[in-house]
Amino acid sequence: MIKAGIIGGAGYTGGELIRLLLNHPQVELTQIISNSQAGLPVNQVHQDLLGETDICFSKELDKTVDVVFLCMGHGASSKFFEENELPENTKVIDLSHDFRLDPEKVYGLPELNKEAIKSANFIANPGCFATAIELALLPLAHNGMLKEVHVSGITGSTGAGMSPSETTHFSWRDSNISTYKAFTHQHLDEIRQTLMVYQPWFEQPINFVPYRGNFTRGIMITAYQYCEWPLEEAVRVYKEYYEDHPFTFVTDNGLDLKQVVNTNKCVIQLEMHNGYLMVQSVIDNLLKGASGQAVQNMNLMFGFDEDEGLKLKASRF
Amino acid sequence: MIKAGIIGGAGYTGGELIRLLLNHPQVELTQIISNSQAGLPVNQVHQDLLGETDICFSKELDKTVDVVFLCMGHGASSKFFEENELPENTKVIDLSHDFRLDPEKVYGLPELNKEAIKSANFIANPGCFATAIELALLPLAHNGMLKEVHVSGITGSTGAGMSPSETTHFSWRDSNISTYKAFTHQHLDEIRQTLMVYQPWFEQPINFVPYRGNFTRGIMITAYQYCEWPLEEAVRVYKEYYEDHPFTFVTDNGLDLKQVVNTNKCVIQLEMHNGYLMVQSVIDNLLKGASGQAVQNMNLMFGFDEDEGLKLKASRF
Amino acid sequence: MIKAGIIGGAGYTGGELIRLLLNHPQVELTQIISNSQAGLPVNQVHQDLLGETDICFSKELDKTVDVVFLCMGHGASSKFFEENELPENTKVIDLSHDFRLDPEKVYGLPELNKEAIKSANFIANPGCFATAIELALLPLAHNGMLKEVHVSGITGSTGAGMSPSETTHFSWRDSNISTYKAFTHQHLDEIRQTLMVYQPWFEQPINFVPYRGNFTRGIMITAYQYCEWPLEEAVRVYKEYYEDHPFTFVTDNGLDLKQVVNTNKCVIQLEMHNGYLMVQSVIDNLLKGASGQAVQNMNLMFGFDEDEGLKLKASRF
Amino acid sequence: MIKAGIIGGAGYTGGELIRLLLNHPQVELTQIISNSQAGLPVNQVHQDLLGETDICFSKELDKTVDVVFLCMGHGASSKFFEENELPENTKVIDLSHDFRLDPEKVYGLPELNKEAIKSANFIANPGCFATAIELALLPLAHNGMLKEVHVSGITGSTGAGMSPSETTHFSWRDSNISTYKAFTHQHLDEIRQTLMVYQPWFEQPINFVPYRGNFTRGIMITAYQYCEWPLEEAVRVYKEYYEDHPFTFVTDNGLDLKQVVNTNKCVIQLEMHNGYLMVQSVIDNLLKGASGQAVQNMNLMFGFDEDEGLKLKASRF
Repeated sequence: MIKAGIIGGAGYTGGELIRLLLNHPQVELTQIISNSQAGLPVNQVHQDLLGETDICFSKELDKTVDVVFLCMGHGASSKFFEENELPENTKVIDLSHDFRLDPEKVYGLPELNKEAIKSANFIANPGCFATAIELALLPLAHNGMLKEVHVSGITGSTGAGMSPSETTHFSWRDSNISTYKAFTHQHLDEIRQTLMVYQPWFEQPINFVPYRGNFTRGIMITAYQYCEWPLEEAVRVYKEYYEDHPFTFVTDNGLDLKQVVNTNKCVIQLEMHNGYLMVQSVIDNLLKGASGQAVQNMNLMFGFDEDEGLKLKASRF
Repeated sequence: MIKAGIIGGAGYTGGELIRLLLNHPQVELTQIISNSQAGLPVNQVHQDLLGETDICFSKELDKTVDVVFLCMGHGASSKFFEENELPENTKVIDLSHDFRLDPEKVYGLPELNKEAIKSANFIANPGCFATAIELALLPLAHNGMLKEVHVSGITGSTGAGMSPSETTHFSWRDSNISTYKAFTHQHLDEIRQTLMVYQPWFEQPINFVPYRGNFTRGIMITAYQYCEWPLEEAVRVYKEYYEDHPFTFVTDNGLDLKQVVNTNKCVIQLEMHNGYLMVQSVIDNLLKGASGQAVQNMNLMFGFDEDEGLKLKASRF
Repeated sequence: MIKAGIIGGAGYTGGELIRLLLNHPQVELTQIISNSQAGLPVNQVHQDLLGETDICFSKELDKTVDVVFLCMGHGASSKFFEENELPENTKVIDLSHDFRLDPEKVYGLPELNKEAIKSANFIANPGCFATAIELALLPLAHNGMLKEVHVSGITGSTGAGMSPSETTHFSWRDSNISTYKAFTHQHLDEIRQTLMVYQPWFEQPINFVPYRGNFTRGIMITAYQYCEWPLEEAVRVYKEYYEDHPFTFVTDNGLDLKQVVNTNKCVIQLEMHNGYLMVQSVIDNLLKGASGQAVQNMNLMFGFDEDEGLKLKASRF
Repeated sequence: MIKAGIIGGAGYTGGELIRLLLNHPQVELTQIISNSQAGLPVNQVHQDLLGETDICFSKELDKTVDVVFLCMGHGASSKFFEENELPENTKVIDLSHDFRLDPEKVYGLPELNKEAIKSANFIANPGCFATAIELALLPLAHNGMLKEVHVSGITGSTGAGMSPSETTHFSWRDSNISTYKAFTHQHLDEIRQTLMVYQPWFEQPINFVPYRGNFTRGIMITAYQYCEWPLEEAVRVYKEYYEDHPFTFVTDNGLDLKQVVNTNKCVIQLEMHNGYLMVQSVIDNLLKGASGQAVQNMNLMFGFDEDEGLKLKASRF
């Protein structure tokens, strides 16, 4: 039994972490920090937790925890470490993008870095689109087969966080579709860095068009590139690559987003058209794309079963 | 051809008015005032208007218009008249609730007040839930049959306006349902005042439970009360009451919200159960519940056909 | 460890049962019957189960299970027992409405019948709207306070099952609202029977207007009736009534549907207006309104913890 | 004033045509054929038309109309002409894909073929995705600049028609995303044929990934290809190309789907990234993508103003 703390517990990823950790058999969630909600019962802010915890948000970490999750938003994590020091033996899992390109931190994608994660003290937890795209392309990189790749993807509104904006206003977003940051999405650097672990000479473009979807949870991406493998070979390679990874699957039976919503899974599908290998993946952006993967990393860091506390009932319909 | 101006043109009801008036054959929309957007082309804010107008938002009304629509939000209309004077012959249609209980203003529900509207200089345009509930109950009041009535209703998110709030955040509202202001909704006074025009002795409760729906446009309400009429009689009375009103209909074929979305119609359905007459109505909250009814009132005030500029294609699917 | 079987495993409630039972630490799910899908892997039909089970749908129950869940649709359960016999010691939980009014069967609402459920061999599992309405009114009945009650409610599309119909077609239902079976809903008899357990002289009307919502999961109902209790007293009575029931809660902090989606909870809120006590409740129609409650009943029947296998992560956003 | 008939008036495109033609000042809609609904009032099937027409569906065309619209679904139009003969002077607008590749028929894309349409007797009305993609790429083809192009797109559920299927069931599709017919969509031939009108030597791939969206109306597509033009030049070329076309616009202010929903418009946006010109377009699949464009074609064929009856109020929110 370890003690865990969360800094930034009032937002979406913080909320998901609380939901997961309260049900985790190896974890006692002892501190949940929120500047904006300090003093309030957690179940008043995350009202679905009524009856599950009486803990209140606190203001400052008391540093007795074994692991701390940082869910403060991009930029705030760096600032936190400028202003605070954690005990040396406190493990850190940071959900911001602040340290994902830092070569001294371990990038927390278990399908790439499982062994390094097991012995890490500081995990930079991957971004949501990054997770979906990397899992779609890793086996290609692993075989040195990556070429210029064309990617489209669509994300739920929770990816944009809790702060209100025009594009998260219900009246605007409902039944609406739009794109943002085409070719310039902030996850592209982290994706390239990840793929280059296996294929260091990969320098071709990753062309990425992200859509804003009119749903709350989940990401689907579609990637394609030239590939000489026949489809059967590609399927074999992908299944082999993921065979020891408990959350990532290759399906033979068609793909849709709600196969993974409210789970920590990634499901991948392959097709071959006109010489292009098309790879699609779906994840829940708040789970495998954020808090679920963070717990998966914690499990690895502390020697728990990789799927402990993560056998979640899908919300298929 | 008359000249029209809109004060508060950047919000939802202002936008709908612009859309309607730009296509109205008898109206030249010469001024659209918005404090927040002054100087900007209207089609940059209401982007669907690209190609339909090159007018820009302006800051102050130059008072040469024949009619002005006030779309500034509740409270702001009263304040406007404290600080501004309009020429005596400028007709006013106010979409706020500020003057709906003012006995010197004409309440702009054509199904009640058509003759008074024709000669009015100042119209207090009805509220959206008020319109739906009044149209469901007016024929009962007209026959002195009103009793304690039980009403539930559900409204789209545009009824809550453009300012962001927790309950209009997409991630909160999507696939969610909640109620607000049960038994205390701000339209209840205006509803009672309207019904008492016909049945001045009506003092029983109007019990109203409003739901927030996870859609953008439209209102459905369900009202029931004891009534001795057989169903056929009720249907006959309702059809007769609305026969000279071009936008309000009684259906024999089942009711759903999307029968009226993007139109100025109200459709009503009647059922009889256990001695209760159940009356349901549907409207588009931004049209018959706001800007469409405002144009209908303008048509009556200026002697145009009542449905001029209001023959709108429904967005059935 | 007990062995469980499901008859009718291809539909929504069957699918939810499979999701729950695969993660239940005391249950081995050994047989899943489906006429339409016999022979197919379960994870081809419920594709979210990829990686969680390799079991295939079978055609006939081999009768070695300790408990069988019937999820075949209304009418089909009665027919099943005309044509099949189960071993005497096989416990049955029937999710259809076929036996809910049968005085020889135990009605599986733990908040009413916990002791009887513990020793039952055959449970008639409650309907979804019935569960929501009964939990909203039981404490009133328990105190003999029930009077004529006015109820509105709104349900997700999964309540209508998997067979296609006009009102479950996406193009029709999206952004649409309608009502059905007002005052005549098929759950009214079961609701009355349940309330009369505590208040046998209750003969006043239960006026119920059910809405079809444009979302997939969940039910919210709003009930009100005259009540002499001050609000504080009502809250006290409700909290006391539910204090030993692990899934039903009274909130002091506002209510919305997504507080319970993807959980087995019921959350209740009370308000007092003009002499009316207003009681609202929310449940997930497929969990507390169907399969979750069925597992809760199984837990009681076999002496497991009541919430075993039911500590589900909410899908709050 | 011309007389118009519709064959196949009970479906989505038939319904939209009726809505448009009933409000068209130059058209009398005299016959609406539907095998499945013959005899029924049109406003019982398209219930939003209550109060707008008393016409009933009929079984057979009496051939006195000036123009007939075929909305029968793919394959059925060919079959119709095998079994029926229309008077020589009856103009035909066929909304199926049956004749789009037939060199003797005029392809009804006014932005390509305006003059030919004006004198045509038979129009093959373009497909919905085809319209969106062609309008995004035509100015490139016109300048001989087309290269291999990468296209993703997302469509509303009405594109799949009225017949129920798994992927149009509300419980499946709500909050879900999936792709279909990637690289093999049935509109690809018609798109290539259209683009080759201007650039006959165009033989490179059009790689197209279509997504099913969880909304009812509208299509957004994103296309990109290498292009030497600077962005300003591309914008200038596009604006010039569309300057005489009343429904197609190039925006400088950001793009989202609801800018065009319930209108006959196409709005296009250009960006330049890493040598790729990215072109996006949005249309309403039932209007500019089907019935609206059909009316636009009719206007051209009969010498009416091109936008007669098509100045539609957008359903922006």
